[in-house]
Amino acid sequence: MYKLLKTEGRAKRGEFHTPHGIIQTPVFMNVATVAAIKGALSTKDLKDVKCQVALSNTYHLHLRPGDKVIKKLGGLHKFMVWDRPILTDSGGFQVFSLTSLRKIKEEGVYFSSHIDGRKIFMGPEESMQIQSNIGSTIAMAFDECPPYPAERGYMEDSVARTTRWLKRCKAELNRLNQLEDTVNPNQMLFGINQGGTYEDIRIEHAKIISEMDLDGYAVGGLAVGETHAEMYRILEEVVPYLPQNKPTYLMGVGTPENILEAVDRGIDFFDCVLPARNGRHGHVYTNRGKLNLFNAKYELDERPIEEGCGCPTCTTYSRAYIRHLLKAKEMLGMRLCVLHNLYFFNTMMEEIREALDQGNYAVYKKQKLDGFKQKEEE
Amino acid sequence: MYKLLKTEGRAKRGEFHTPHGIIQTPVFMNVATVAAIKGALSTKDLKDVKCQVALSNTYHLHLRPGDKVIKKLGGLHKFMVWDRPILTDSGGFQVFSLTSLRKIKEEGVYFSSHIDGRKIFMGPEESMQIQSNIGSTIAMAFDECPPYPAERGYMEDSVARTTRWLKRCKAELNRLNQLEDTVNPNQMLFGINQGGTYEDIRIEHAKIISEMDLDGYAVGGLAVGETHAEMYRILEEVVPYLPQNKPTYLMGVGTPENILEAVDRGIDFFDCVLPARNGRHGHVYTNRGKLNLFNAKYELDERPIEEGCGCPTCTTYSRAYIRHLLKAKEMLGMRLCVLHNLYFFNTMMEEIREALDQGNYAVYKKQKLDGFKQKEEE
Repeated sequence: MYKLLKTEGRAKRGEFHTPHGIIQTPVFMNVATVAAIKGALSTKDLKDVKCQVALSNTYHLHLRPGDKVIKKLGGLHKFMVWDRPILTDSGGFQVFSLTSLRKIKEEGVYFSSHIDGRKIFMGPEESMQIQSNIGSTIAMAFDECPPYPAERGYMEDSVARTTRWLKRCKAELNRLNQLEDTVNPNQMLFGINQGGTYEDIRIEHAKIISEMDLDGYAVGGLAVGETHAEMYRILEEVVPYLPQNKPTYLMGVGTPENILEAVDRGIDFFDCVLPARNGRHGHVYTNRGKLNLFNAKYELDERPIEEGCGCPTCTTYSRAYIRHLLKAKEMLGMRLCVLHNLYFFNTMMEEIREALDQGNYAVYKKQKLDGFKQKEEE
Repeated sequence: MYKLLKTEGRAKRGEFHTPHGIIQTPVFMNVATVAAIKGALSTKDLKDVKCQVALSNTYHLHLRPGDKVIKKLGGLHKFMVWDRPILTDSGGFQVFSLTSLRKIKEEGVYFSSHIDGRKIFMGPEESMQIQSNIGSTIAMAFDECPPYPAERGYMEDSVARTTRWLKRCKAELNRLNQLEDTVNPNQMLFGINQGGTYEDIRIEHAKIISEMDLDGYAVGGLAVGETHAEMYRILEEVVPYLPQNKPTYLMGVGTPENILEAVDRGIDFFDCVLPARNGRHGHVYTNRGKLNLFNAKYELDERPIEEGCGCPTCTTYSRAYIRHLLKAKEMLGMRLCVLHNLYFFNTMMEEIREALDQGNYAVYKKQKLDGFKQKEEE
């Protein structure tokens, strides 16, 4: 159940009630691809960096350790020892981006595993069954994430099929939730809006899926190659056709700037691999832009990554120490950077919520974006 | 200052007072080669696994980030944010095991860096200067760790040179400790007994260095290829010639079995890369032998690595989850295994101290060794 607490323009401040606790929105979900955050973060670490929701990947977990193994072990929450909400993607995006020899048919997608090449079929029912075995809090509908750019005709056919698949997803998850041995009988379902950069296709699709009374709605197929301006334009066109009294999730986005702009356009769920991936490469976020800790100028820098930051890294270690660890290829260096970056994102979301609570979002957003431009490092 | 609290046979229970706190012995030092424990453990993690003393490698820190950098940053304690004792090795062992094109002369050793091949010279004075810059609690004397096996003539010459080097180490560290800008004016020095498996050479050497009034004495050059029986025999012959009222350190040893046997022969300091290295490969220690968590039989095993273990890993995660992480090459899997293994070693040392306190070591040792033999995994 989504409770809209406050709005400012199109920006929404909400609470999403789930069987695993309340999610305060806007929220940034932290990506735990194979039931762990890359960078040696434990679920204890995740709490230390204020993570509200973990996001795991259905395709990866299906292949390893296998969703049936996870079900036997009591579901993903118990397996990875995480008692807060988990969202699983549908596996669709990975099927379309990682696999080879794909064939898309009405029933679903035939493809080869990226691990061992074995042939796999996944359709809407299979995706729901896998996500049901995993027992996540929120399941995502199985859709096609069309390539960018895509021809209009291809896009129309793809979106129509995604709509038919969504109906099958809803029916299948309803069925699964009622089975006696289901892991999470209250598993929720989010639908996904597609249509590429064709706003009329997107709007038409948004209208149709909005009538299906799902638990939340995602905007998918963005951040796949189009410009930021195009992405913002699509959000401006489409979000008004999605229910305001449901969570709105912009999949796979993005930079701090993207998030600030998308909140202004009515988005309240985000996820992205950027903070963890950048952290593993020594790129860390600050309120004055990103720093590359491999830079020689940090050799003797005794300051934390960011003065005043309350993260486990900044309250303890210096830039000089972290740089040394990164240069020496010590895993701890990556871990400290990932901890900082996730804390940075989660803290920014906290600030966004506070600004919305105070009716102060426009001012906050401008100050934050101005700060990013006053780069410490050029 | 070493305080001998109790003995049982030759086994010693002591307290070693240092400028960075009291070390309860027998103690196992945890190896932080380049100022971090491999496996993404932070110094916070180190305290959670009950580490008393961190051991860092002089040779590695000299090359990267450079001991002068560490000195400028206030010394190793401040750099890695660790307020308990640190022991640094002399660099000698790495010079003899990692480098190429070595030439040993009276003044020291000429060699090429294993990182970039550049020519380096290290002698007793250089080793002391580097360790002084690092500012460790305990510096180790610069010695030659002779190859195994070595001919008697070579060994005699080598040990005689090591004695001459030890005198130079002591003089140089005394000088450095009195410099105004020294990092740790109370830096301690341990001498190292050598002689391979020639007990008469070892005994003669032990007698000479015992008269030099050092802060502690190590037995070096063991665990380099000789059998365990030979190692125990050497300890039985040599330790009686080292001062009982000083710490006795068996370098680079070893397995839990080795430690239990060596304590019985008068050793009270240990260090070894085994628990961290084995952990990174999914090999974990229990009181019923080692387990290989890659083994398929742990796929659905919901038990912790060891029932009743109080480590951060066992109090949270299952064998099944850790196995999954290891198989998926997630860094967290390595970290969880290293945490457990170091906790296992540090806890065994705690048990050893308790048994000695209670005059019960012989019984404890037998029970512990019997337990290891009742292997859970064959």
